[in-house]
Amino acid sequence: MTGPVPLDLTADPIDLTAALVDVPSVSRDEQRLADELEAALRAQAPHLEVQRCGQALLARTNLGRERRVLLAGHIDTVPIADNVPSRREGDLLYGCGSSDMKAGDAVFAHLAVTLTEPRYDLTLVLYDCEEIEAAANGLGRIEREHRDWLEADLALLGEPTNGVVEAGCQGTLRVEITVRGRRAHSARSWLGENAVHAAGEVLRRLSEHKAREVDIDGCLYREGLQAVGIRGGVAGNVVPDECVVVVNFRFAPDRSAEAAEAYVREVFAGFEVELVDVSPGALPGLDRPAAEEFLAATGATPTAKYGWTDVSRFAALGIPALNYGPGDPNLAHTREEHVDTKLITATTEALRAFLS
Amino acid sequence: MTGPVPLDLTADPIDLTAALVDVPSVSRDEQRLADELEAALRAQAPHLEVQRCGQALLARTNLGRERRVLLAGHIDTVPIADNVPSRREGDLLYGCGSSDMKAGDAVFAHLAVTLTEPRYDLTLVLYDCEEIEAAANGLGRIEREHRDWLEADLALLGEPTNGVVEAGCQGTLRVEITVRGRRAHSARSWLGENAVHAAGEVLRRLSEHKAREVDIDGCLYREGLQAVGIRGGVAGNVVPDECVVVVNFRFAPDRSAEAAEAYVREVFAGFEVELVDVSPGALPGLDRPAAEEFLAATGATPTAKYGWTDVSRFAALGIPALNYGPGDPNLAHTREEHVDTKLITATTEALRAFLS
Repeated sequence: MTGPVPLDLTADPIDLTAALVDVPSVSRDEQRLADELEAALRAQAPHLEVQRCGQALLARTNLGRERRVLLAGHIDTVPIADNVPSRREGDLLYGCGSSDMKAGDAVFAHLAVTLTEPRYDLTLVLYDCEEIEAAANGLGRIEREHRDWLEADLALLGEPTNGVVEAGCQGTLRVEITVRGRRAHSARSWLGENAVHAAGEVLRRLSEHKAREVDIDGCLYREGLQAVGIRGGVAGNVVPDECVVVVNFRFAPDRSAEAAEAYVREVFAGFEVELVDVSPGALPGLDRPAAEEFLAATGATPTAKYGWTDVSRFAALGIPALNYGPGDPNLAHTREEHVDTKLITATTEALRAFLS
Repeated sequence: MTGPVPLDLTADPIDLTAALVDVPSVSRDEQRLADELEAALRAQAPHLEVQRCGQALLARTNLGRERRVLLAGHIDTVPIADNVPSRREGDLLYGCGSSDMKAGDAVFAHLAVTLTEPRYDLTLVLYDCEEIEAAANGLGRIEREHRDWLEADLALLGEPTNGVVEAGCQGTLRVEITVRGRRAHSARSWLGENAVHAAGEVLRRLSEHKAREVDIDGCLYREGLQAVGIRGGVAGNVVPDECVVVVNFRFAPDRSAEAAEAYVREVFAGFEVELVDVSPGALPGLDRPAAEEFLAATGATPTAKYGWTDVSRFAALGIPALNYGPGDPNLAHTREEHVDTKLITATTEALRAFLS
């Protein structure tokens, strides 16, 4: 079922961004937008092989080029905060998903549809469920069901970077540190051992921890070791016998997930440490030919990506991957989310130069 | 509505304890037991003036004695844990409320009913809703509605003390200490200030705090300053901007509630401290004549009461009050709750000697 006006992927990417924002696509509710994208791709890009996968769309050229560039963007958004439909104010385009990352989707889809003779073979991946738990991520599903569609020499993700190239990404892990004591009535506290008091040592080590900074391929990565939660207490008159500190470690991509876990265990030696989840980082991979050509063509200076993004999924497949999108990462998930339309045009032109 | 066999308050207090346990009386659900007690008091103790107050029973002699002794016990219990009806195993009587404090109720009711010519005027107070929030406490309601019934020269509460006399009680207060920081994405933690890390200083002061011990009227009171809860955290990827430590201060009765609060504020100087609740302690009052006579008659050596009990309600009225009951305080509120029947007999005899 399509909306009143079919999507025009050949339109100016600014107008296309607005059109994409105007079709709500909160995570798990992307079907209408996926249907409209599929219809538009099949109608407007006969040079592309198109494959539907759940609420994701895959489209590619098969020109036999020496190298292949993959352009990927998620089409889902966080819940709408009274910010749909889109609206323009001067150079700014407001709306849910405008920045994260329908502007990136618009640039990528526009180029894939309009560049019928690109310098590289192109693969377009527009996927669902990126904003929710990792198990639902559409890119993960594509990897399981259509692994061959992800082959590429360079992957660009349209995540908001203010038009800057962000390389690699840091890894992240969480541990729960459980401090145990002995429960007692607080009126007879000398019979107990207060686990919350004992957790003070965990907090002391966190406070005194010096986060490492490391330069990789010219990108500076700053690590961080932070308590993101603490809980303890049985009742208002009981000496608590357990206190749990949840710690998040953001680690530079020169550490493997295993090495990062070992490091955290070393910092909290003597405490009970349980790994809750871990996502490996991704090395920048800027020394690969396709990445070098991209940087040369766009004239960009790459910086380190601090947040975890799907870039690391490509890294795990051995594909250099970069974040490059017109959105503003600081506006993602906010009620005031917007995108600077000048950056939409600028990234479109830079990418067109690279791909033509 | 009475049970199949009417309560016999003149029976051996051991059997009476079992009979009281067999009438369930979880807090707010005491009506059946109160009805049975009222019927029994009116039928079996014509020498007593009886007054019903909600689900509490008041009964007293009016003999014109020089002094009056008040015997008080709550008739409610914590929720039943598969431990009703009562059962005997050798010298032990098991069941919900057996220790806390139907054994004490049985001793007091038995003596009030059987001592028709006591040495002191006697007041019996059997009240409801002691095990739940203070606002529901039946003794508080009696104080508001029947203040004259609480006049006495000595009050004995039948709370479980293993047959030992526990004098006075410590006060208790709780504060919430809020530590603030600045929220940030944990991937860019240097943009934030971690409130959980900063709470480490609160825990350090708690760990290093030396609790005071003080001797009052021969009773040693040990204070305690304990974290009873801690909470903080926004999400697994956010530097928390707030951490709250809940601290419980159990203070000796030579400190007023105000002085105790001031002390806690001094310990946590520099932090945001909010008083959540406070209950003053009660001085032992062992130098009053009726208390001295009680100790002489029973030959007991008083010890300090650490927990907060309704003793302090009497203390606030200027009435010396002691805890004295056959139950075991360590078994209160447990599934295995029981009372040593030898202590039921011993406390009955000691009190009978004092009151006859």
